[in-house]
Amino acid sequence: MKTVAIAGTGLIGASFGLALRSAGFDGAIIGVSSPGAVKAAVEAGAIDRGASLEEAAGQADLVFLAQTIGRIIDTLRRLDPLVKPGALVTDAGSTKCEITDVGRQHLRRAQFLGGHPMAGKEKRGASEASASLFRNHTWVLTPDEPAELETPAAKEFRGWLGKIGARVVSLDSDAHDRVVAYTSHAPQLASTALASMVAGRVTAAESTIAGSGLTDMTRLALSSYDIWRDILATNSGHIERALGFYIQELEHIRENLRTRELQREFAKGAEFAAQIRRGK
Amino acid sequence: MKTVAIAGTGLIGASFGLALRSAGFDGAIIGVSSPGAVKAAVEAGAIDRGASLEEAAGQADLVFLAQTIGRIIDTLRRLDPLVKPGALVTDAGSTKCEITDVGRQHLRRAQFLGGHPMAGKEKRGASEASASLFRNHTWVLTPDEPAELETPAAKEFRGWLGKIGARVVSLDSDAHDRVVAYTSHAPQLASTALASMVAGRVTAAESTIAGSGLTDMTRLALSSYDIWRDILATNSGHIERALGFYIQELEHIRENLRTRELQREFAKGAEFAAQIRRGK
Repeated sequence: MKTVAIAGTGLIGASFGLALRSAGFDGAIIGVSSPGAVKAAVEAGAIDRGASLEEAAGQADLVFLAQTIGRIIDTLRRLDPLVKPGALVTDAGSTKCEITDVGRQHLRRAQFLGGHPMAGKEKRGASEASASLFRNHTWVLTPDEPAELETPAAKEFRGWLGKIGARVVSLDSDAHDRVVAYTSHAPQLASTALASMVAGRVTAAESTIAGSGLTDMTRLALSSYDIWRDILATNSGHIERALGFYIQELEHIRENLRTRELQREFAKGAEFAAQIRRGK
Repeated sequence: MKTVAIAGTGLIGASFGLALRSAGFDGAIIGVSSPGAVKAAVEAGAIDRGASLEEAAGQADLVFLAQTIGRIIDTLRRLDPLVKPGALVTDAGSTKCEITDVGRQHLRRAQFLGGHPMAGKEKRGASEASASLFRNHTWVLTPDEPAELETPAAKEFRGWLGKIGARVVSLDSDAHDRVVAYTSHAPQLASTALASMVAGRVTAAESTIAGSGLTDMTRLALSSYDIWRDILATNSGHIERALGFYIQELEHIRENLRTRELQREFAKGAEFAAQIRRGK
């Protein structure tokens, strides 16, 4: 591939540009974003220049959509007439079913392959971007059929993902959205709900006797709704189910505070918590 | 005070011994614990020697109960005939209503003043003890009446707490137990419930795509039931109420995944999460 277009040059988009450069990519990297985001990404060395979606998509062999989910869906709806035939269009959206449905429906002249780099930072923007953001992190690809990974454009893209240090995992979109409902979306809502619940019931003075447990359990609650709105709206089915199971589990614990039954819950929870730490 | 007895020479008990020594206490420090715990505490320099409860309590001006809640309650039930008249008996139990009730009922010859040092570590035992464990951490005292803080023995004890760097806060037992239900016990159960819920629903292979959010939210779930059994049993009323509110909050979120209503929950949660961080 000779030219890459990155739509959305925030933390993820700009880090992808930096990572490509650092891995030896010497073609053009064009950014499509707001004037401020383009300026920051150029200054960070993540893109060569900004351009309109029309201009950038017309030249790019790879179009990487690193916008919010809502913007990715909008872009996919109008991208087909603009792309270079045979290009690969991929994305970084945190939910995959709705995005891959729209990509499949609307893209005819280019290949769509959904993606989700499992990497991030608390701070946003190109000024926080890093060439190593994806190194040793999972990058999920969500083809409908395994053959989608074997086209020349997809093979070249996967080659670059390997060079930037990402660990590529292939999952179907629904499996992805189910797993992240449990491993990312339910934990976020558990944290937001806990912080919001305690907020009304413990005064500022009383909260000074809180230990590190509450601090841990409310770190995710610092996240902004702006980031989460689209995620929750596009994965509500799986999240509803996960929260339903979580509420059941809490009810069970609440009813058994004075019984040995909770020994089982603690053992099961501790085993899982240890297991995900070994996996890192 | 010339002689201190520490019953339970694990992390908290042994750290208290080390902290007293490091703050200049030059009297005797006697440990009452299992032979292995006494040996480890002597080796750590936290106590001078081990003794039976009878022998230690008969000599001590301060008796510090740093055992599990169940053991503290047992010890309080049989301590009165053993203590030196006028001694101060205090403790480090994580819940206070049941302990202070038993202390008030059973101690006649010595003063009982409940306490809860809000400090800890993931690893247990005297080998993990540190003279600075309590430094800049809150140490709650739970008198029934403010006058209990002004007896000569209580004033001397509070003086030593200041010297070891603890920030003394006075709360009544019920207020303490209510606050920790929200700031410590509900967060623990939220973590255990989340880990236990996800455990059955995501395979080990799938959990490798989990991000740092799940890791944060399951750190507390690594805790052992052994530590929590007594806490849950002796604070079940407040914990039941806190979990009830938490479940309500989660139900509300679950019903509003696709509405702007959640903007309010995220804002409230983020504000509280930021507030407790400023308080540190």
